[in-house]
Amino acid sequence: MTSPHQCARSIDQATDEWTRLLGQSHVLRDREPADGTLGHTFSHDARIALELTPGTVTEVRECVRIAARYRVPLYTVSTGRNWGYGTLPAGGDDCVVLRLSRLDRIREYDPELGTVSLEPGVSQGRLAAFLEAEGDQYRLDVTGSSRDCSVLGNYIERGFGHSPYADHFAQVCALEVVTADGELLHTGFGRFDNARAKDAYRWGVGPYLDGLFSQSNLGIVTAMTVWLMPKPEYFQYFHVTVAREEDLHGCVTALRELRRRGFVRSAVHIGNAFKIYSALNPTFPWQETGGRTPLSREYVDGVLKRSGAGPWSFSGGLYGTRAQVALSRREIRRTFRGKVQVRQIRFFDDRRLALMERLAGPLTFLSRAPVRRITELLRALMGIKTGVPTDAMLKTLYWRQAGGVPGEPDPDRDRCGLLWCAPVAPLKGDHALELNTIVKEVFGRHGFEPMISMTVISERALDCIVALHYDRGVPGEDSRALDCHRELLDALTNAGYYPYRLGSHEMEHVSRNSSAAWNRTITRIGDALDPKGILAPGRYRPERAASEPATGGTEGT
Amino acid sequence: MTSPHQCARSIDQATDEWTRLLGQSHVLRDREPADGTLGHTFSHDARIALELTPGTVTEVRECVRIAARYRVPLYTVSTGRNWGYGTLPAGGDDCVVLRLSRLDRIREYDPELGTVSLEPGVSQGRLAAFLEAEGDQYRLDVTGSSRDCSVLGNYIERGFGHSPYADHFAQVCALEVVTADGELLHTGFGRFDNARAKDAYRWGVGPYLDGLFSQSNLGIVTAMTVWLMPKPEYFQYFHVTVAREEDLHGCVTALRELRRRGFVRSAVHIGNAFKIYSALNPTFPWQETGGRTPLSREYVDGVLKRSGAGPWSFSGGLYGTRAQVALSRREIRRTFRGKVQVRQIRFFDDRRLALMERLAGPLTFLSRAPVRRITELLRALMGIKTGVPTDAMLKTLYWRQAGGVPGEPDPDRDRCGLLWCAPVAPLKGDHALELNTIVKEVFGRHGFEPMISMTVISERALDCIVALHYDRGVPGEDSRALDCHRELLDALTNAGYYPYRLGSHEMEHVSRNSSAAWNRTITRIGDALDPKGILAPGRYRPERAASEPATGGTEGT
Repeated sequence: MTSPHQCARSIDQATDEWTRLLGQSHVLRDREPADGTLGHTFSHDARIALELTPGTVTEVRECVRIAARYRVPLYTVSTGRNWGYGTLPAGGDDCVVLRLSRLDRIREYDPELGTVSLEPGVSQGRLAAFLEAEGDQYRLDVTGSSRDCSVLGNYIERGFGHSPYADHFAQVCALEVVTADGELLHTGFGRFDNARAKDAYRWGVGPYLDGLFSQSNLGIVTAMTVWLMPKPEYFQYFHVTVAREEDLHGCVTALRELRRRGFVRSAVHIGNAFKIYSALNPTFPWQETGGRTPLSREYVDGVLKRSGAGPWSFSGGLYGTRAQVALSRREIRRTFRGKVQVRQIRFFDDRRLALMERLAGPLTFLSRAPVRRITELLRALMGIKTGVPTDAMLKTLYWRQAGGVPGEPDPDRDRCGLLWCAPVAPLKGDHALELNTIVKEVFGRHGFEPMISMTVISERALDCIVALHYDRGVPGEDSRALDCHRELLDALTNAGYYPYRLGSHEMEHVSRNSSAAWNRTITRIGDALDPKGILAPGRYRPERAASEPATGGTEGT
Repeated sequence: MTSPHQCARSIDQATDEWTRLLGQSHVLRDREPADGTLGHTFSHDARIALELTPGTVTEVRECVRIAARYRVPLYTVSTGRNWGYGTLPAGGDDCVVLRLSRLDRIREYDPELGTVSLEPGVSQGRLAAFLEAEGDQYRLDVTGSSRDCSVLGNYIERGFGHSPYADHFAQVCALEVVTADGELLHTGFGRFDNARAKDAYRWGVGPYLDGLFSQSNLGIVTAMTVWLMPKPEYFQYFHVTVAREEDLHGCVTALRELRRRGFVRSAVHIGNAFKIYSALNPTFPWQETGGRTPLSREYVDGVLKRSGAGPWSFSGGLYGTRAQVALSRREIRRTFRGKVQVRQIRFFDDRRLALMERLAGPLTFLSRAPVRRITELLRALMGIKTGVPTDAMLKTLYWRQAGGVPGEPDPDRDRCGLLWCAPVAPLKGDHALELNTIVKEVFGRHGFEPMISMTVISERALDCIVALHYDRGVPGEDSRALDCHRELLDALTNAGYYPYRLGSHEMEHVSRNSSAAWNRTITRIGDALDPKGILAPGRYRPERAASEPATGGTEGT
């Protein structure tokens, strides 16, 4: 093993080489860990020693070669906005961050097929603007996170969105990957110089390798092709609220049926009372409750009932021609009627929304409902479902911040606490109810509001997204939040519900529960592709104990 | 290196151990290579020394351990019906075949989610019968090959079908894999003992490994979960014929538009004149042409024109409620009208087909068309598009067989020659025309009929399937066919059209064209997972030169 002294020397030597390669201004020393762009809305004690910002793929390859030469691990981020999941390992000392935000080219766009090839620095806002300028024929399936988030970062992390293209990793092909030896690998048909179908067909021929580079540390993805959704000819947003908590069961059954029968073809988002309340009222009602946390369910129910909402609300989109949408609308009404106690079923299109926006003043007066906030929210949600990213949802990160939402939200600067937990369940009512019970129990014990949404992500699966919002400025809250989160993850995995994605602080938890065969297999692959362990050690796979040398890692430096 | 003498000793010792394990009756010696069940409808000089037929996963693991101990490679087949692609390497001496047909359990079926977990020996016919007995709620997306073909074999080889679930590998999760060390790996959420969503969600958490085990030799898949299509409430088959060869361009544009707009949601099959002619007339018109091959295009055009067909015909399915299907039907008519010179657009449902079957006699008399053969074909095609597998298409393998189609077709026994070539292109008219030109040119030069179909397999890709039919009984024909096939593959790949799948004799061709980075990466992974190279050497990846030891393969036996 190398001694700490040798390590320090290695990083110094590597730094000299990186500086020669990139220039001073792209090798930043001693960055603050919480500088607002690494997604750490929770406590982590990693120290960023260096941040490298290469400007080309060639520079990325050279950075990796230098890292390999001196055996200095690199932690890659795209734009670094993985809020609530984080980027750096807990307890990572002297981390070197490789930030790819300067790789921001939209390389190729095919308006006939609706494919675009892009680099990690392209944000969903930039791509949306690009597509609009190109004639607004296609839309990207976006997430509810900010306009500045990386498309590639989310898609390679297998995030999901809201439209018929919601399953992000299923819309991806032709990866360009910098491997741990600094070489450039093209996947799918991209492995052939002249392949015509590389952007149109994802499997290629022979083993399909793309999956290896998703949620992993087996290579650095520097470009990918993303498939785009044709702009819908017509779009309606639907919104349903039910009266009773147990109606969740019937909702799930109804939505499964609607998806199977092709009447709903996109993700559907189910929010609980806290989730809906906080969407309408981004910050905690400090005054009304005298500052007592957690907010009581009774309070929330009371407010929601007055505006026609209930314990569960859900929303989805209908895409197609007017005739296709009309068929679906009819069937949605019919399907829910027998299964749940519906409080409201509402459909909105662009025209109706515009009308509401014009009449917001008088409508507020007449209905006593916060119509302006409702239309603002509707505009954002309808946008998200049709590929228009928004910063509006960032406000919800200020839930527990006493100061409210500032003009220019910046969750890291403002010490907003957020931890996500996203267990997957089969699309069945019983599982949805069980998830709800588990989350409520754990959060109740720890004094946080259980903000739960469940997304119907396919004909068969439900992804429950639990948001733990807190104020990092309150002493002790950071560790209370992490405790709550850890207990939640334990309770969920004990019950068989594993998350689809991990936070940087919980990688180890899931490796521990994996079969020995899985851990062994991924370790063998990792050792073969990155024998020196320089790519984000520990990310999504067991970290090799320092005493075991990797296969093939015997050569010296 | 081991000497030939040592090899012989190794295989003898291994055989003793396999025999002790499985019993004499499951270790068959000196099987004929062309025994009708290894998919070799073309010339190959592999010799099968042994065929092992384990009956349980535990036995498979033990077989692999024995193979590893004596370094004897195993070639795995499911049911062994990979007709036209083959199984064994050209020039493979003393191959040991591991046949998994006795692993034929349907393990778990979830009628709420429409998932089924099954082993390699389950044929599409068996599964279809099972699903029907379970209440006929779900259908499997089937291929046009026989009822006896393995489901797992086709799905893991990334075959495709005809319904909305046509992309087979996209419908698969939770693989059970025997690795080269005889261990059992479960992928996706299956890596956790108690995961609830393992059959409902395919990505799991962390790197997605399933792709590694598709079209590969990195492990032996002994079970997988397959997603099933809900039985359509209503189904219509559509069939369109166009008047001019160049209409192919407009057809592709129209079909792309229909798919993008959601009016067609399944694969669409486009057949050229030879393909359509041979579907209606499975054997070559020896008498009418005086036995001269190849059949002339003029002859075929003449016959087709009389029955309202044309140079291209295509067919697809509409799935949904009657109202959904009606919307699509209207839009199909409208979309083609402007773009191509339509000869016929026909729609059929079950009722209409039944009526035609009843009236076949009088209709034949009145129309002089082969109505009985047409209804027989329609019944088969409509079945295939709705998950009812059939043996009817096997007849087309007898195209060049002078003896015609026997009562019980068996392509290997009857020496039917067949070689598939399946290049993928972007879903654009120009590419379709170019593929057509290339195939016609090469086949014309070699004297075979260009039987071409092109399948719209997604919103973006077209898979062209070229069938080379010949009679293996004609002296010299085997090598003429292989020459033609090789030239075709060269011409296609030179033009940038790579096949989605390879025959056992052409693995090397494609590895040769791959980037060095791809070959290196897959070799590293292969060496890590199968250091002794005992799983089907050379399959879908470059074979290691005998002189290079694998990483980690240094231990002795």
